[in-house]
Amino acid sequence: MIAILSPSTPDERIQEIVQFIEKHELQAHVSKGMERTVIGIIGQFSPSFGEQVRQLKGVENVVRISKSYKLASRDFHPDNTVIDWKGVKIGGDDLVIMGGPCAVETPEQIDEIARLVKAAGGQVLRGGAFKPRTGPYAFQGVGVEGLKMMKEAGDKHGLLTITEVMTPEYVDICAEYADIMQVGTRNMQNFDLLRKLGTIKNPVLLKRGFSATYDEFLNAAEYILAGGNPNVMLCERGIRTFETYTRNTLDLAAIPSLKTLSHLPVISDPSHGTGRRELVESMSKASVMAGADGLIVEMHTDPDNSMTGDGVQSLYPDQFAKLLHELEQIAPFAGKKFDTKKVPLNV
Amino acid sequence: MIAILSPSTPDERIQEIVQFIEKHELQAHVSKGMERTVIGIIGQFSPSFGEQVRQLKGVENVVRISKSYKLASRDFHPDNTVIDWKGVKIGGDDLVIMGGPCAVETPEQIDEIARLVKAAGGQVLRGGAFKPRTGPYAFQGVGVEGLKMMKEAGDKHGLLTITEVMTPEYVDICAEYADIMQVGTRNMQNFDLLRKLGTIKNPVLLKRGFSATYDEFLNAAEYILAGGNPNVMLCERGIRTFETYTRNTLDLAAIPSLKTLSHLPVISDPSHGTGRRELVESMSKASVMAGADGLIVEMHTDPDNSMTGDGVQSLYPDQFAKLLHELEQIAPFAGKKFDTKKVPLNV
Amino acid sequence: MIAILSPSTPDERIQEIVQFIEKHELQAHVSKGMERTVIGIIGQFSPSFGEQVRQLKGVENVVRISKSYKLASRDFHPDNTVIDWKGVKIGGDDLVIMGGPCAVETPEQIDEIARLVKAAGGQVLRGGAFKPRTGPYAFQGVGVEGLKMMKEAGDKHGLLTITEVMTPEYVDICAEYADIMQVGTRNMQNFDLLRKLGTIKNPVLLKRGFSATYDEFLNAAEYILAGGNPNVMLCERGIRTFETYTRNTLDLAAIPSLKTLSHLPVISDPSHGTGRRELVESMSKASVMAGADGLIVEMHTDPDNSMTGDGVQSLYPDQFAKLLHELEQIAPFAGKKFDTKKVPLNV
Amino acid sequence: MIAILSPSTPDERIQEIVQFIEKHELQAHVSKGMERTVIGIIGQFSPSFGEQVRQLKGVENVVRISKSYKLASRDFHPDNTVIDWKGVKIGGDDLVIMGGPCAVETPEQIDEIARLVKAAGGQVLRGGAFKPRTGPYAFQGVGVEGLKMMKEAGDKHGLLTITEVMTPEYVDICAEYADIMQVGTRNMQNFDLLRKLGTIKNPVLLKRGFSATYDEFLNAAEYILAGGNPNVMLCERGIRTFETYTRNTLDLAAIPSLKTLSHLPVISDPSHGTGRRELVESMSKASVMAGADGLIVEMHTDPDNSMTGDGVQSLYPDQFAKLLHELEQIAPFAGKKFDTKKVPLNV
Repeated sequence: MIAILSPSTPDERIQEIVQFIEKHELQAHVSKGMERTVIGIIGQFSPSFGEQVRQLKGVENVVRISKSYKLASRDFHPDNTVIDWKGVKIGGDDLVIMGGPCAVETPEQIDEIARLVKAAGGQVLRGGAFKPRTGPYAFQGVGVEGLKMMKEAGDKHGLLTITEVMTPEYVDICAEYADIMQVGTRNMQNFDLLRKLGTIKNPVLLKRGFSATYDEFLNAAEYILAGGNPNVMLCERGIRTFETYTRNTLDLAAIPSLKTLSHLPVISDPSHGTGRRELVESMSKASVMAGADGLIVEMHTDPDNSMTGDGVQSLYPDQFAKLLHELEQIAPFAGKKFDTKKVPLNV
Repeated sequence: MIAILSPSTPDERIQEIVQFIEKHELQAHVSKGMERTVIGIIGQFSPSFGEQVRQLKGVENVVRISKSYKLASRDFHPDNTVIDWKGVKIGGDDLVIMGGPCAVETPEQIDEIARLVKAAGGQVLRGGAFKPRTGPYAFQGVGVEGLKMMKEAGDKHGLLTITEVMTPEYVDICAEYADIMQVGTRNMQNFDLLRKLGTIKNPVLLKRGFSATYDEFLNAAEYILAGGNPNVMLCERGIRTFETYTRNTLDLAAIPSLKTLSHLPVISDPSHGTGRRELVESMSKASVMAGADGLIVEMHTDPDNSMTGDGVQSLYPDQFAKLLHELEQIAPFAGKKFDTKKVPLNV
Repeated sequence: MIAILSPSTPDERIQEIVQFIEKHELQAHVSKGMERTVIGIIGQFSPSFGEQVRQLKGVENVVRISKSYKLASRDFHPDNTVIDWKGVKIGGDDLVIMGGPCAVETPEQIDEIARLVKAAGGQVLRGGAFKPRTGPYAFQGVGVEGLKMMKEAGDKHGLLTITEVMTPEYVDICAEYADIMQVGTRNMQNFDLLRKLGTIKNPVLLKRGFSATYDEFLNAAEYILAGGNPNVMLCERGIRTFETYTRNTLDLAAIPSLKTLSHLPVISDPSHGTGRRELVESMSKASVMAGADGLIVEMHTDPDNSMTGDGVQSLYPDQFAKLLHELEQIAPFAGKKFDTKKVPLNV
Repeated sequence: MIAILSPSTPDERIQEIVQFIEKHELQAHVSKGMERTVIGIIGQFSPSFGEQVRQLKGVENVVRISKSYKLASRDFHPDNTVIDWKGVKIGGDDLVIMGGPCAVETPEQIDEIARLVKAAGGQVLRGGAFKPRTGPYAFQGVGVEGLKMMKEAGDKHGLLTITEVMTPEYVDICAEYADIMQVGTRNMQNFDLLRKLGTIKNPVLLKRGFSATYDEFLNAAEYILAGGNPNVMLCERGIRTFETYTRNTLDLAAIPSLKTLSHLPVISDPSHGTGRRELVESMSKASVMAGADGLIVEMHTDPDNSMTGDGVQSLYPDQFAKLLHELEQIAPFAGKKFDTKKVPLNV
């Protein structure tokens, strides 16, 4: 860490700052420039120590030169993490496709969609049982019954399942019925939830907060990793910007950037990332070329009548199957494998 | 709600859309323009119905003309809400000042700060017992012990207390020890927490999410109100923008805007809103002129050694007292009263 | 256009608003809902008329249902525009690659880079003679001499040239020496410059302002088109967000979105869009999959010593050639052709 | 400037980087930490040199510790600049009020508005003769005739005038007729325009680009100052964020921040900053409390029929007069003087 002093800081004050640093059992290296003096600070210190230094009189700014996350950093874990859960490998050579409705509605609905996801070549069934909604009067999900419906459909069709968990007290029951725990964008910094997820072993798909920096995103992952659960994957799902034509701005450069900064798998969500069905195909293909380890895509058999109103971003089953056929062809150019098992498009 | 159709939508399709609307027991008023046809939709419908209409073939866009929140809206509650808790009135004629440290550290620290807040004329003692931190290795607060220390200090010096509650399971214990429950910016859409806060009577200070629109903010308040707790106040605490000189961009126009849209009291947080001690005084005065019903301001007796590192935005006690004297003078020009009780500045 | 009235607007006021509309020789269709009344406004009106209506007493909001741009809109020009300039076709089946340095420095530099662009399969040589710089003390480009150097290099190696023009008075001389006129992100709303570019025939590459919406972007294009120059291409080059790891946030969903809204060709700039050399390859491939008609990529033979300091985002020649070989392979999956002419990678 | 090296940079590479720095006649101070090595770089270097260093192999990041602007910086000019133009002093003890319509329309309109501005106590008449408009079909201003109308009205009523200049070629004629040259938000980085404004002596009101950082803003001012014109004032007019209820987000913390970083006067524009008439009063008062040296406020005698459609943010004359009476009362609490000359409110 480096402290940059104000131009006119007198020598006595510089000495006091040095003493403050040394009092914390750290080393201080003073370097005088033509305009400013900087002090290099060396040793083990807590993240808040930087802020303490910044507020010292005479200190203009503080620059951290180490990252605040460790377990999530590629510096300390050069090889890619490959999550292996019941034989599905995420973060390795395979492209992993997670598909399904925004919300689980009925046993028939989720069974039919599971059949279609499997037939198209997907490996994971997505579906929400508990739904985070902006307003209190919107459909809030079918709850635990939905978890059971999903599990049945997943087991029957040979798919892993992923579902969102919104609060610490539901982590255990969600982990009992579903394979992958999804943390939604509004909960990326729900620290109690993250801590609880650190105590289980199920894989966690952590969605980027819609205004979170890469650094905050990786710190949120660090909470789970530090708790003892190494099976974390990151999900880019669009950030909030001034543009309103798309629901969010899908930040595809986040994919290679996060893979540079971290060893964790990175998944892309083109459905929430754009909020428009007609953009999902091109953004899915672009995500794969950007280096994504997988995609999570909304698909619904009757999106016009979906209960959440998110159908506007859901693919129809034939669009989903066609997309997966195209991904099969382009994946190798991004160093990935994906196999639709040559199932014909109309199933 | 209005559905705007694509330019070339044929008449048969228009009829189908009308039938879809009428099937939901709503009225459809078709109006043909030179370039486009629009359909007015009238009746009671769920928030997600709009999205269902938007995704119908032939529909280009949907415009809501009613707000999705009701209880929070001034349309349905023209008079200002004045929260009265143990005699402190928030949202009425009084300017309410909440002051204190980012985090409760020791009994001595919080007692001394409470004394200084009271002496300067403040009505509420702020202090964090549970701290939301970006990274898992930062100081996370002293927990329930901190609640007890705050309560003792508040009782002794005749101040209400406000503290952040981060998870539903801690609501009851926080409400037992503290007066006002604070929902932090990262939890504005922690819906389970909001629902739980709807079941108590203590006032809630709801901080705006750092990327939340006014509409989302008021919908979050609606969760608490709909649960049965009418004592909600809104807190503008800065939004995230591209500017990095300040920690956040304090959106002071939010104050009169929210007071136009809603009847709830609005509080300003110039400490988090700027992240810089030297900006707190001017932004506090500007907040009052913008129409704030109160301020929540960080003050610490030893900010250089605060445990959270947020000391950089904390006022020193003499700055805090001087600020309150100045607010006393300007408050009348914003239609507010504030009385420092003529306590001299050095106490 | 639709005017949405405030809930309690009395009938007399509604009548006055109707009269105001009819006074402007427009039709007003009143439609009363349960909560609000809306008035549909039909006829030919200027863009500012909407604002006039919005500010009428009793009007809460105004919604435009026609776009403010016409010539740029796909509604009025369903087929793709294909710009044909000296045989290079932009916006059709070919993927067009523009490569070169941020700034023209010396005749030898630009000649060698032109040779490498051509050898790798590129069709257009990029290079700046006039440079927009944040501060006045930075290198501002070599001026007209640079235009001459570029023309010589382009002619010798059989490449079109593209260069930025910053001010109306330089349009004619830039158009004399270069083929494609680039409008930089800071000048997207330099309306006098846009108007001047409407009077020439050279193709114009219009970069999106770093905080411009799609609507503003297409309105800027409309200025050029309305002036009589149909040869406009749009360039997504990243927008400004809160994320600082990348120089900008490349908004790849803009590519299919703009192609839906407009018939104009869309180019992607992964160099400025990310500001990091190591992200250019993946974002180039992602751009092609998103549907880009071409790419503009910085390449420099000695980026460590580039005069603008933008070398940090420039590819080395071998990276550039390798990228074009990869694009050749993936372009067909996005419906495009690109031919490196089988030139071996080391030339 | 400080170069932060990658964790594993070998000693030989560090030596090469040192040699690169010394080759540029600068000093390099190497400081090895536990995790990383940093190199302090001392001496005179161009702004682009930092980017050259950043792109060197082994360099992870570069941190500038001096500001890139000099003449605009308070470091080099500790006292406030007070612009004195024909006796009106901007940046000193007086609060300066600039009022008038968005656009000059007719001689009668501007004469009547000038009378009202003067009567209310304002010192400067604002009005646009050349209007920057998003689309080409909107009203573009009345041009040079408008300049003449403004001059006549200003002379008659004893007011300075301010008008926007959009292109270098119009600077001279604008400076002939008007006193203060306004640079609009879209032109903040129109560098040729800034350079031209450096060659005249008239005061320049430079509006912040709607997505410009403080640093970019001050660099834009630097262009004018470096050209030889010291009479520059900065104008905060709102930035673009995700919030759409207000036209822009008025960043009032910019006022004290810019006054800390720079010695130049700072003006606030609550009209464009909010885009809503009903917010102008509270934001004007908040701006003064934030430390503004003046305000530029839209006022129109018939805003419902203004030609630009910006009337929605214009005050009515009685609102304007009432605002100035209130400012007179609060200005002293912000260390400013403003005198309405006790003119009664109805004039």
